[in-house]
Amino acid sequence: MKITDLIKKKKLGEELSTEEIRFFVKGVSDGTIPEYQTSALLMAVWFQGMNREETFDLTIAMRDSGDTLDLSEFPDTIDKHSTGGIGDKLSLIVLPFWLASGLIVAKMSGRGLGFTGGTIDKLESVPGYQTSLDRDTFFEHIRRFGVAVAGQSESLVPADKKLYALRDVTETVDSLPLIAASIMSKKLATAASTIVLDVKYGEGSFMKTRKNAKKLAEIMVEIGKNDGRRMGALLSPMDRPLGRAVGNALEIKEVHRFLKGEAEGDLKENAFALIAAGFVLGGKADDLERGRQLAAELLENGKARQSFYHWLRAQGGCFDEDNFEEAVSYPAAEYPVYAEKDGYITAIHGLNIGIAAMELGAGRKKLGDAIDPAAGVVLQKDIGDRVRSGDILAVLYGNGDFAAAAEIVQKSVIIEDGAPQEANDEIEIFNGDRWEYFEKDHD
Amino acid sequence: MKITDLIKKKKLGEELSTEEIRFFVKGVSDGTIPEYQTSALLMAVWFQGMNREETFDLTIAMRDSGDTLDLSEFPDTIDKHSTGGIGDKLSLIVLPFWLASGLIVAKMSGRGLGFTGGTIDKLESVPGYQTSLDRDTFFEHIRRFGVAVAGQSESLVPADKKLYALRDVTETVDSLPLIAASIMSKKLATAASTIVLDVKYGEGSFMKTRKNAKKLAEIMVEIGKNDGRRMGALLSPMDRPLGRAVGNALEIKEVHRFLKGEAEGDLKENAFALIAAGFVLGGKADDLERGRQLAAELLENGKARQSFYHWLRAQGGCFDEDNFEEAVSYPAAEYPVYAEKDGYITAIHGLNIGIAAMELGAGRKKLGDAIDPAAGVVLQKDIGDRVRSGDILAVLYGNGDFAAAAEIVQKSVIIEDGAPQEANDEIEIFNGDRWEYFEKDHD
Repeated sequence: MKITDLIKKKKLGEELSTEEIRFFVKGVSDGTIPEYQTSALLMAVWFQGMNREETFDLTIAMRDSGDTLDLSEFPDTIDKHSTGGIGDKLSLIVLPFWLASGLIVAKMSGRGLGFTGGTIDKLESVPGYQTSLDRDTFFEHIRRFGVAVAGQSESLVPADKKLYALRDVTETVDSLPLIAASIMSKKLATAASTIVLDVKYGEGSFMKTRKNAKKLAEIMVEIGKNDGRRMGALLSPMDRPLGRAVGNALEIKEVHRFLKGEAEGDLKENAFALIAAGFVLGGKADDLERGRQLAAELLENGKARQSFYHWLRAQGGCFDEDNFEEAVSYPAAEYPVYAEKDGYITAIHGLNIGIAAMELGAGRKKLGDAIDPAAGVVLQKDIGDRVRSGDILAVLYGNGDFAAAAEIVQKSVIIEDGAPQEANDEIEIFNGDRWEYFEKDHD
Repeated sequence: MKITDLIKKKKLGEELSTEEIRFFVKGVSDGTIPEYQTSALLMAVWFQGMNREETFDLTIAMRDSGDTLDLSEFPDTIDKHSTGGIGDKLSLIVLPFWLASGLIVAKMSGRGLGFTGGTIDKLESVPGYQTSLDRDTFFEHIRRFGVAVAGQSESLVPADKKLYALRDVTETVDSLPLIAASIMSKKLATAASTIVLDVKYGEGSFMKTRKNAKKLAEIMVEIGKNDGRRMGALLSPMDRPLGRAVGNALEIKEVHRFLKGEAEGDLKENAFALIAAGFVLGGKADDLERGRQLAAELLENGKARQSFYHWLRAQGGCFDEDNFEEAVSYPAAEYPVYAEKDGYITAIHGLNIGIAAMELGAGRKKLGDAIDPAAGVVLQKDIGDRVRSGDILAVLYGNGDFAAAAEIVQKSVIIEDGAPQEANDEIEIFNGDRWEYFEKDHD
């Protein structure tokens, strides 16, 4: 088999066979295919796409390029993946609910590569929390505590590391089959029996349109089902930061306030939708509505919050429950951002808020950069709020060029004379069988 | 400027600016752009193409990546380029005619990379002929003899060497703008004031269709004109070997027989068309018809043949004119290929004849392989000839697996019951201003 033949076939829009895709992934992994040929094939895939069979074959070949976990000894394992968004702290909220319902949570997570930290970065702002668990310890934690959330092992899906590094520098990241195979190869390698995907769309996210996001979700759902998993997916708009805080410790605190009952707005809607989907798929609720009721119950009676503490402590987290938020507070300078005119907030550009947070130290400009757990942005106002010139729009934390970050934030919060129109931001959920709209809670 | 931005623009079908193309070619030349990014951009160009300005900019940037010659001290220099074909010995025939008419011939030529040798390989079968001329000697030869035909200097268009090597292994060879820029950058670097292109199409050549070949010719003509050259082009079919001999010394002998007056068939038509175009462009004839008359004259009175000897001797060729063909004869075994049935020859597949010649030692399987000057195939029959089982179709020369080569040749010469239809193989010429058909000589 010759890689040039594969490039030619794909270039001409032909389908690659299972054997050809295995040959490609093996050659990428062991270095026998040079990077210049890999990148030529990736660009041909960008133009010609891959059909369902090819995308599944690619996912499986990538999954099998390294170690895989076998969680089949556990009955009901659940995992979640988000395509990422500014201020996305949903994993930290959702996992405790699932845990509290009796589901087993097994999640390996990456570090943030974008403007803000990933779940692992956020967890590291909890004093004592160990994000590095070796294989045996990961299993041991699941057995003893019913939960393990750790950084992704280096030996997991090495083909994805090589392919992603190359895609990142050859403008071939934004290809649906390549995105789907990259995400799902890692999810299938860590092997939970239920996987709930959170696919965002809009300005602040990877997929710019709802249509493309749904397409990506459907490809990933199909890959997972083909591999015998129960699959759910959430489709939600992401043009503004999710919740109010953007920054690692700041988001942990927001999660804690949520679990104390201060849940509100988009963050609550998105979280409840994901939680409910996990309950339905994991057999804890018959439908989304009952899933939502169970979530409300577990929030109300404090069991979700107790599961949060249980999880963090299982992995070394060290804090006094009554003073949790103080335990995750770090010294930082504060800097308020003021409104410069009267009016209504009609939009908050998430991407720019993310950039401002990164400038303050909350994210990495390049791989390996250190993160300041204290740094970030906390919005004080929401879309639709009426503001007067001089009101505080946001508070910045960290050590960096506050004036520059403040200017970015100021420009990201759009103030206009008229109140904004109600946005069409309906949440759609794939409940394992079909898509349904998730009714907003108007309580 | 960032190479990823260029890849993204081209991927999305946008136009690259002159500065961006210069940045790319410079980065390829000095190695600051890694090969995996270059190949990604080449594949994006394969899909999206390049417009006229981009293709011209690429050509000029490539030309300027290395040394260039300045031939402006000479009034009427002429050069020729062929996109290559099996048995293509036209340069060796055409250049002596131009030389005999008073035009100055300055040509740098590559070695054969395909199945059979290039012009330089063929010339090396003339005893004593020096194909390596340094820059000063090249100029000195033009001044003293009016002719210099040498191997291409290593320092000429280094960007093309790098790009071509990469295109060759990433399936990005067959892109019109990349082909045009590769050819024209070398032609413009060697700087003759008149350039005649010979663009072939059909089974045995690079361009499979007449339409694409004409498109390529037009792109190259425009590039040359933009750079101030007088441009001509020949468009001719190439589905069978040109002439009867395929192999280095065998072709030199065929050229000599042509110049002695034994010109015939397609070889004569193609040669006369090219010669006439050069005469028109170089101011030696008012139109193609008068160019053809002048060519016939120079053939008849032996002046073309004398110019051939003059040229070869100027570069060290050592032979007795009366026994020229013996001087280029090398010891070789012979092996006849017989017809296996009665009928008419309806096709001769040039590509396979080329492969058979390569197997016998006439071409290179890979760069750096030695060539046997004696090796090759000489066809004894032409398309339209009636043959009987047992007739000799071709004679093989060289040292190799004669039986295997004979089988290839046998399968390449198609014998059918009925006589073949007259092929639509009209020759079209771009005479500097417009395309015209070249009327066949029916004398």
